[in-house]
Amino acid sequence: MKAPLHMERIARLRERLRETGVDCIWIVQPENRRYLSGFRATDLQLIESSGSLLITDHDTLLLTDSRYTEEATREAVGFSVKTVQNGIVKGIAGLVPDLGTRRLGFEKDWVTWGMHRDLEKELRELSPPVELVPLDGIVEEMREVKDADERGALQASADLLSNIMGRIIEFLEPGLTERAVAWKVEEFAREGGAEDLAFPSIVASGPNSALPHAVPTERMLEQGEPVILDLGVKLNGYCSDMTRTVFLGNPSPTLKTIYRTVREAQAAAIREIRPGLETTFVDAIARDMIKQAGFGDYFGHGLGHGVGLATHEAPRLGPRKPTVLKQGMVVTVEPGIYVPAEGGVRLEEMVFLTAQGAEIMTSDSHFYDW
Amino acid sequence: MKAPLHMERIARLRERLRETGVDCIWIVQPENRRYLSGFRATDLQLIESSGSLLITDHDTLLLTDSRYTEEATREAVGFSVKTVQNGIVKGIAGLVPDLGTRRLGFEKDWVTWGMHRDLEKELRELSPPVELVPLDGIVEEMREVKDADERGALQASADLLSNIMGRIIEFLEPGLTERAVAWKVEEFAREGGAEDLAFPSIVASGPNSALPHAVPTERMLEQGEPVILDLGVKLNGYCSDMTRTVFLGNPSPTLKTIYRTVREAQAAAIREIRPGLETTFVDAIARDMIKQAGFGDYFGHGLGHGVGLATHEAPRLGPRKPTVLKQGMVVTVEPGIYVPAEGGVRLEEMVFLTAQGAEIMTSDSHFYDW
Repeated sequence: MKAPLHMERIARLRERLRETGVDCIWIVQPENRRYLSGFRATDLQLIESSGSLLITDHDTLLLTDSRYTEEATREAVGFSVKTVQNGIVKGIAGLVPDLGTRRLGFEKDWVTWGMHRDLEKELRELSPPVELVPLDGIVEEMREVKDADERGALQASADLLSNIMGRIIEFLEPGLTERAVAWKVEEFAREGGAEDLAFPSIVASGPNSALPHAVPTERMLEQGEPVILDLGVKLNGYCSDMTRTVFLGNPSPTLKTIYRTVREAQAAAIREIRPGLETTFVDAIARDMIKQAGFGDYFGHGLGHGVGLATHEAPRLGPRKPTVLKQGMVVTVEPGIYVPAEGGVRLEEMVFLTAQGAEIMTSDSHFYDW
Repeated sequence: MKAPLHMERIARLRERLRETGVDCIWIVQPENRRYLSGFRATDLQLIESSGSLLITDHDTLLLTDSRYTEEATREAVGFSVKTVQNGIVKGIAGLVPDLGTRRLGFEKDWVTWGMHRDLEKELRELSPPVELVPLDGIVEEMREVKDADERGALQASADLLSNIMGRIIEFLEPGLTERAVAWKVEEFAREGGAEDLAFPSIVASGPNSALPHAVPTERMLEQGEPVILDLGVKLNGYCSDMTRTVFLGNPSPTLKTIYRTVREAQAAAIREIRPGLETTFVDAIARDMIKQAGFGDYFGHGLGHGVGLATHEAPRLGPRKPTVLKQGMVVTVEPGIYVPAEGGVRLEEMVFLTAQGAEIMTSDSHFYDW
């Protein structure tokens, strides 16, 4: 990533900040930090941050500790890297007077109560005092609409994933355990150049396929059962996410009906989705079809979610909280039906929203024409 | 894990809660949650929690959403699993009146400012109102001292890691890239039954060895250079952590001196460490030796840290914030010297603190007698 890209994003952020009335924003969220600065480090845990940004109308600072100074300097082009010695709270309190900050915005869903309290105390003692202002998803909202660089990175991630999905499906056979299949996904991902999986792979066979969030077990794949493969990789920071349901042999008539229903619901939602529609409306297209087929009680999650630097990001496509879809968004479309005794089916594609509608980014032709 | 183990931990927690004056504690931290309940799910991101605990003198509840109900019921024996529909804030507010709670403790470094504000608002409207009380590391402090089950799990994790370390060192040869070595670590870890790495492997060769926190690159290993291997695996939830520095061929006299200094500093610290000593005192044993050898400016991190369900946990062994070491703690001893133009050396063992002193848990004999 080049500096102009991040500078353009920062220019847009500065416009947004004017509307909120803060004169400086403190960024701790790892994907927001990378989006704005290019700094690629991840955080080992919440309480072990690799760095924070401070952005005003004139300054772009990256605060980190000595472990990350060199990496930050190399990656965060256009940022002035400040190595803090005694933690981020003291670091911020030491820097904001020089920045002329009076109202410091923070990410309300990422800053902990304890850190806020400590910083508030330090800032109150400054002269003039600095006020902390909670901000809600400002950068997350910017990240909803992908620019050309991001679209390219997401397509590359989706292409790698599509290739892996095809190879994994060919690899499946009765007797393999779910964990062995999940491990093979990781092998293919690394060989393909992914820096990581986007999330722990879901390989859910037989009764496990009825759990939308199954963790791979030592259970062996059996003939005639569904196997849900929900996979994702991370390539150059960008995530991909895709699901196929595969049958080894001939499934029951009920499972065939479930499969057909999910596939038709997905196709209808992808056909209709476009900028200007509300997320709830698109969710309802698939949900109503599943309800009419008699499986309304068995589709317990939302239709999809945004994908980008994070696997799950805004917007959410579900039955509640409508937001309007925009050109340039990348979202998943993933209806599912999960019947406890019977098993489950989920199908998922990533789509890019053009002015006209959806362009499917993931590609794999392992479907059944039941 | 069996229910009695968790019930014993909860009994100890209840004693601690009495001292704090709260009548209920809300646990969100994933390792604390697992430690107290046995619920093994991880959180995909901070804003996607897989569950919370509410523990009073009489009740043990696990609040989760429908994705995790089945797993929670199976794993959290002794807990009453409550499936919440509209998020954790509404879930807690709906449950605390029945629990008779008036003062609800929360983990101040894990609850976000936004969630605290939302919950505070809900709790204020209850009749009688419920007060939120910040708690600082109560469960983390319990986790510092390992019980017999944990010691066994940590030893198993350390054994697997020691085996992997030995095989990786034999695998090294000039021309391999750092990333290829890191990928081999992952392969060995999965083959050995680890569910994950404990942290991203550090494979730092040549100039990269001077960065304590290097990320594996496409750089190829070369003759005579140091290669720092800082590896860890997670086995049945328990982490291990170990470092060796290996030379392919004969290094410079300076690097030999650095290596010898680090090894002697580590040996002295391991010889002296025992329950009753302050962490700063043990850190100073190694730090002073490194200083006397003339490398005092090049040991920029602490001597070690606790290891358990998390790779980095309490206690911290560093030059500041003394705490007293206790029998049953598991900590790393990992001095290092990093000279920018020259390269770096770090050696790390995990040790268990018995009444007499340290028992080394990691084992690998790839040392140099310079």
